[in-house]
Amino acid sequence: MKVVVVAGIPGSGSTTVLKGALVDLDYEHVNYGDVMLEIAQKRDIVQDRDSMRKLSPEVQKEVQREAAKSIRERAKQSNIIVDTHCTIKTPLGFLPGLPPWVLEELQPDQFVLVEADGDEILIRRISDTTRTRDMEKLQDINLHQQMNRSVAMAYAALTGATVQIIQNHDDQLDETVERMIETLK
Amino acid sequence: MKVVVVAGIPGSGSTTVLKGALVDLDYEHVNYGDVMLEIAQKRDIVQDRDSMRKLSPEVQKEVQREAAKSIRERAKQSNIIVDTHCTIKTPLGFLPGLPPWVLEELQPDQFVLVEADGDEILIRRISDTTRTRDMEKLQDINLHQQMNRSVAMAYAALTGATVQIIQNHDDQLDETVERMIETLK
Amino acid sequence: MKVVVVAGIPGSGSTTVLKGALVDLDYEHVNYGDVMLEIAQKRDIVQDRDSMRKLSPEVQKEVQREAAKSIRERAKQSNIIVDTHCTIKTPLGFLPGLPPWVLEELQPDQFVLVEADGDEILIRRISDTTRTRDMEKLQDINLHQQMNRSVAMAYAALTGATVQIIQNHDDQLDETVERMIETLK
Repeated sequence: MKVVVVAGIPGSGSTTVLKGALVDLDYEHVNYGDVMLEIAQKRDIVQDRDSMRKLSPEVQKEVQREAAKSIRERAKQSNIIVDTHCTIKTPLGFLPGLPPWVLEELQPDQFVLVEADGDEILIRRISDTTRTRDMEKLQDINLHQQMNRSVAMAYAALTGATVQIIQNHDDQLDETVERMIETLK
Repeated sequence: MKVVVVAGIPGSGSTTVLKGALVDLDYEHVNYGDVMLEIAQKRDIVQDRDSMRKLSPEVQKEVQREAAKSIRERAKQSNIIVDTHCTIKTPLGFLPGLPPWVLEELQPDQFVLVEADGDEILIRRISDTTRTRDMEKLQDINLHQQMNRSVAMAYAALTGATVQIIQNHDDQLDETVERMIETLK
Repeated sequence: MKVVVVAGIPGSGSTTVLKGALVDLDYEHVNYGDVMLEIAQKRDIVQDRDSMRKLSPEVQKEVQREAAKSIRERAKQSNIIVDTHCTIKTPLGFLPGLPPWVLEELQPDQFVLVEADGDEILIRRISDTTRTRDMEKLQDINLHQQMNRSVAMAYAALTGATVQIIQNHDDQLDETVERMIETLK
């Protein structure tokens, strides 16, 4: 059984593509943040998602590690997709979504990066009125995607996992979903 | 004595450049796949190269690790060039050619990436009628070279080795060979 | 207390930006090379900076590791900025400035890369008559910055640290310093 990490920056459409692909595939779809929340609630250190970010860095790290361990455990029963981020853009810079204490426990077999052209992402974000997102410039979007490619290759060097890049261009969702299915099956 | 990894995507001309450079240099030239085959044959688990890919992933990993160890051993006697790939393009994505269990044993001192412009590589592949290769689009060629640069820098961060990029443009083989000699001597 | 690594290729203006930012911040500013020299002098193995490069690679490695350890120690008392290089361009290729034996001891919390457009850097280098620098072509400057981004993301994957990219364009020093302050405070 394998653990696959699927990632994409906001507006890449990674979740949409993944949902389309998983209809026909036998995977358990796991959201990393949800698993962290469950673990923190079991330990009785948070009530809800909002209080997660108030935890001290050390405790957050511990919960992250536990979450990774628990996900790897589940991979004994079924194939697992982890929906997460390669890097999170913070005011302090790009934060790796899979720091060493997570990567060691999670031991992913495959990374899939869903991308789109910078301008496609820009327009998708503007059109999405359901979320309030900080508007990024085209070059910031391109930089974020570039940094994700780099860090994904570093994760690959650290684990031996493969890295697939899937382009999710406008009006080609069927082809993109097909490509995702080919990659995951 | 040092271990140098030389890599380039198909059509980069890495092997040609390397052969030209090694005429004047004191290196043992090792093909990673050959060493793996030798080891598997000694263990009596395969007869020929074709059966190598039928080995289970665990056994392949073990053979890979053994090969790396044996190459590092040889570096006690002479300088070693390992001709291999930074990443291998597979249907599941870019597979790191030097996963952690190889890198730890091989401990390379230097990486040399031979590159060319995407269109040069495209035309070389089309002109090469001796091999049947899947035809890749220009952007796929460029992506593969970019991913190799990223993973090479990750290998460097993991080992402390240097990374040299050598451009092998059309009709400049002498200069390219000269640059390779300067890098290796 | 945190350890921040600030880096930029020659002509990026990283030191100028850093000096401007540190006026208003509570950081100890450490030059990696200076710390290495101190340690080597204490051990009585060198007299001056010039003899540092004559040390054997093994001894250099040992001194590098000691320097990293000593800097991390100081971070118990105050926030530390380490002014160093992501990669050093050598005749053998790009040498990682923070090889594993340094990274393990230093455990940086944050990387800040100061960049500028390739042509800005080219013209700054030409105008700087106080140093004799090997003149690099525009594409070499761009390549060096790209390799630094890649290796920085590998350092991030290895440590969990964030990576910030700050553009230091001509005639915008105040804005750049402001951005550095926001990143460091």
